Amino acid sequence: MEPLKTIERLSLNQITTGHWNIRDAIDGCVRHEIPSIALWRHKVEEIGLAASKRLVQDSGLKVSSLCRGGMFPAATKSERQKRIDDNKRAIEEAAELGTDTLVLVCGPASEKNLPAAREMVADGIEQIVPFASDYGIKLGVEPLHPMYAAERSVIVTLSEANTIAEQYRPEHVGVVVDVFHVWWDPDLYDQIARAKGRIVGFHVSDWIVPTPDLLMGRGMMGDGVIDLRRIRKAVELADYQGPIEVEIFNETIWNRPGDDVLAEMKSRYLEHV
Amino acid sequence: MEPLKTIERLSLNQITTGHWNIRDAIDGCVRHEIPSIALWRHKVEEIGLAASKRLVQDSGLKVSSLCRGGMFPAATKSERQKRIDDNKRAIEEAAELGTDTLVLVCGPASEKNLPAAREMVADGIEQIVPFASDYGIKLGVEPLHPMYAAERSVIVTLSEANTIAEQYRPEHVGVVVDVFHVWWDPDLYDQIARAKGRIVGFHVSDWIVPTPDLLMGRGMMGDGVIDLRRIRKAVELADYQGPIEVEIFNETIWNRPGDDVLAEMKSRYLEHV
Repeated sequence: MEPLKTIERLSLNQITTGHWNIRDAIDGCVRHEIPSIALWRHKVEEIGLAASKRLVQDSGLKVSSLCRGGMFPAATKSERQKRIDDNKRAIEEAAELGTDTLVLVCGPASEKNLPAAREMVADGIEQIVPFASDYGIKLGVEPLHPMYAAERSVIVTLSEANTIAEQYRPEHVGVVVDVFHVWWDPDLYDQIARAKGRIVGFHVSDWIVPTPDLLMGRGMMGDGVIDLRRIRKAVELADYQGPIEVEIFNETIWNRPGDDVLAEMKSRYLEHV
Repeated sequence: MEPLKTIERLSLNQITTGHWNIRDAIDGCVRHEIPSIALWRHKVEEIGLAASKRLVQDSGLKVSSLCRGGMFPAATKSERQKRIDDNKRAIEEAAELGTDTLVLVCGPASEKNLPAAREMVADGIEQIVPFASDYGIKLGVEPLHPMYAAERSVIVTLSEANTIAEQYRPEHVGVVVDVFHVWWDPDLYDQIARAKGRIVGFHVSDWIVPTPDLLMGRGMMGDGVIDLRRIRKAVELADYQGPIEVEIFNETIWNRPGDDVLAEMKSRYLEHV
């Protein structure tokens, strides 16, 4: 399998430089000639939507996605409606920031009933699809690792994400493949093939051993056990040729100088992805 | 769904009292009238097989299972053979200790090729089945949570475990359902039903939020988000009426007086399982 020859598809998911604000991250990408960036709403909020938009536009960077919508399940109807409303704000922000993709982290169950929570996810997505399509925003259902089932997402397999996405036209709802979340799945390659034409994002990092922490334990590509290139090839065979985001939650990496992280990220991308 | 009325199916998996030796754990079960115990090989080794056997026999306790065989994948043929030999020792020990079930933790991949590691697991089990059946020992394939895929087991779903077990007669190879490992799985109830007649062990604990640690983060039943009773009922509908082991890796629980843990375990079992 051939390595990537250029970084033209590389995108910095700004959580990888967790201690940088949005200006730092944009400037860093420009400095390192990284063509794309994925933005997080809490970082956008720090300086406001209008200022964020100006910074991005001035930089010439492409915005690969906005993180994140989702969090649909809730105990009461009014709370579920609040979540829907927040998703609509996220869709507006995504459009304003010039990306076509909103990543959905679907949310945990509010109590022990996982099947009911999964229905709330399906229902929530159904409610926001017309709004998103009006703005030209694709919703990317991202299955999270099963270890986040209790706190972040009841959608934990690519199979579930595919089942949701298949209810809609590919330009409206797709799936996001993040290697950290799906690498363990015995059904992975079949599910990537099943997602053909519906993959709207591809995220890379690595699974390091020993794993230091559930949330902050991701590694730089090449430092772990994930067969990154094989997964990238499968995703390409499923017709995804879009941006490849590097998304690493890791306090040790956050505490390093951001420029070092970006430089390493570029070389590791070419070497391992 | 009805609670359990007695503790006649309750078994202490001795890892729950991690700082107790085998004598402490056996005495504790007798003191608390817990009828069964699951033993770990490293605890047996501390005082030797013969002494462990005498202690168990004198106590009148039933041994619900021995933990653990498995760990099949390895980089070289000779190392894989060593693992097979070690599994044969585990089978002999299980028989000697008077249990009919050896739990298999199947092992991680030696490199990045998960499909190859999964083949090594299937091959390893195939090699030990005749030996185990000679001793009257059932092999229980236990899928582990996907967060252990890199360090403990490439078998991470009940579906995979079922596929392996179905290659053999139910009295030779079955599956172990541990709620901590499988609760997140959208396919869980279908896979429990598929395992009908092949479930050889049922383990309970809980998934606590926030989860403090990958390995040592399990909770006492009732302290977390797992729908224990619903899973227990599904397992019973799949014809499992055997021991229910409480298996909790948690340093905080280990550091409490063992008698307190056993008393709480009994009441939580009746209340939540």
